[in-house]
Amino acid sequence: MSLLVVGSIALDSVQTPFGVAEDALGGSATYFSYAASYFTPVRLVGVVGEDFPPEHRKLLEGRGVDTTGLVVEEGGETFRWRGKYEGDMNTAETLEVHLNVLGTFNPDLPAGFLDTPFVFLANGSPSMQRKVLAQSKGRKLAVADTMNFWIETQRDELYALLKEVDGLVLNDGEARMLTEEVNLVLAGRKVLALGPKFVIIKKGEHGAMFLSADLAFVMPAYPLGDVVDPTGAGDSFAGGFMGYLASTGRTDAAALKTAMAYGSVIASFNVQDFSLRRFQRTDRAEIDARLEAYRAMMSF
Amino acid sequence: MSLLVVGSIALDSVQTPFGVAEDALGGSATYFSYAASYFTPVRLVGVVGEDFPPEHRKLLEGRGVDTTGLVVEEGGETFRWRGKYEGDMNTAETLEVHLNVLGTFNPDLPAGFLDTPFVFLANGSPSMQRKVLAQSKGRKLAVADTMNFWIETQRDELYALLKEVDGLVLNDGEARMLTEEVNLVLAGRKVLALGPKFVIIKKGEHGAMFLSADLAFVMPAYPLGDVVDPTGAGDSFAGGFMGYLASTGRTDAAALKTAMAYGSVIASFNVQDFSLRRFQRTDRAEIDARLEAYRAMMSF
Repeated sequence: MSLLVVGSIALDSVQTPFGVAEDALGGSATYFSYAASYFTPVRLVGVVGEDFPPEHRKLLEGRGVDTTGLVVEEGGETFRWRGKYEGDMNTAETLEVHLNVLGTFNPDLPAGFLDTPFVFLANGSPSMQRKVLAQSKGRKLAVADTMNFWIETQRDELYALLKEVDGLVLNDGEARMLTEEVNLVLAGRKVLALGPKFVIIKKGEHGAMFLSADLAFVMPAYPLGDVVDPTGAGDSFAGGFMGYLASTGRTDAAALKTAMAYGSVIASFNVQDFSLRRFQRTDRAEIDARLEAYRAMMSF
Repeated sequence: MSLLVVGSIALDSVQTPFGVAEDALGGSATYFSYAASYFTPVRLVGVVGEDFPPEHRKLLEGRGVDTTGLVVEEGGETFRWRGKYEGDMNTAETLEVHLNVLGTFNPDLPAGFLDTPFVFLANGSPSMQRKVLAQSKGRKLAVADTMNFWIETQRDELYALLKEVDGLVLNDGEARMLTEEVNLVLAGRKVLALGPKFVIIKKGEHGAMFLSADLAFVMPAYPLGDVVDPTGAGDSFAGGFMGYLASTGRTDAAALKTAMAYGSVIASFNVQDFSLRRFQRTDRAEIDARLEAYRAMMSF
């Protein structure tokens, strides 16, 4: 089944202990759609400026991503982020943000996208996310990401969103901020009480936790010695998770667990190089081989 | 097969967001031996003062722990630690330490312990650990724990120890300090280059990583909503790990993985209450039931 993602498309300049990338293709919807493209047809909705290099669009289309919903705003400039990672690279230090065309992003879904069964609302304002949701008449499963900025500035809209989505993805610090609960199992349960059927709490290099009324499990990150750039790991994770679910059309417990495993494995490829570079060197066979190694790692 | 542990026995006063315990039974050898006692006969070597309550010794003996090597120093006082955990409880703040009889701890193994095949050197000075190792003529597998204090003050002795043991257990911060390497896979490989055949890097609430020449895997912590006191979690983990290995007499890859799983599960019981209280309310059947839940959690 097809999968819709609405989110940011960026030109990122990133510095890590292992190198730099300047004006590299990034953004939540970019990482998500590229990761998900290994599993299912992806429909992308986002906005860029006239400065957006045509080869970036070709890169996504080369993976079969439907870019009908990628709006080029006349006279506008693409969203830019400049950041730095140090030490354990668990937290990015933002050096510069230029929202540019993203600042007024107010997406109307193309008519052909309204019936998309699997919907992912990448990080963005809850009011915008709700607007997209209202248009997604054909949705079977809707999952949203959020971040500390929206928890601080649009909590009521976020609460309204949480009553409308099936799942929420956020990181550990955000889960603690949203619920004022330190223990992640308890934080996750408090998120569930706000509406969604499941919550995924991302823990960076430590993996991710899944919680629903019936399920509670943790999956570790795939251990790697060559972590080069963590930018986009969470969105890649979500792309693998949603991509696998959409590919099966299922949302049962077994599918959710395998989806979490694929999310972890896809994220592990993403961090092995800057931007989408490591993804560009992989294929589904290599992803599946690492999934089997991941499965073996946790079998005893 | 039997299992020897040499380490501290303490009277701990601990404060967490969930309560306090005063002069409760603690110490690395205590947690280790109680956890390991669910798997195999344990021989304990340690020192206490005349103030050590007889019921604490009985508690250990009640689990079949051989306390022949538990020395009561005349006129001495037992090692005391007072600490506090806040927030996510990942780090203890030490408020008071009174080494007391532990300060001059220089163990001679009882004659009946010299042939013990499985040996665990709980956290202590590397020179003392090496002395114990020199006496352990019948050892089949020797594993040591260490901490930042010894890395800072006895690095050469620690290096000598690492050439003599089969495995090293330490936490993530200690691994980074010892190797000056942030990435834990690379840190682990650098530890292996120092001598041991395997290294276990404990990551607190995030689980533990195992590395050897042939194996590299991560096991998450068992997710719990009721984490009350993390004191002793690492030593309980080691107790479950070594206890399982000793019970099978094996050190092959399959046994090491199951041992890591038992270590994770045993540690999860430990943190559910202060001191040994949660252990005192469990049995091997409950431990095995949680092991199966843990296995199911990671199966997909």
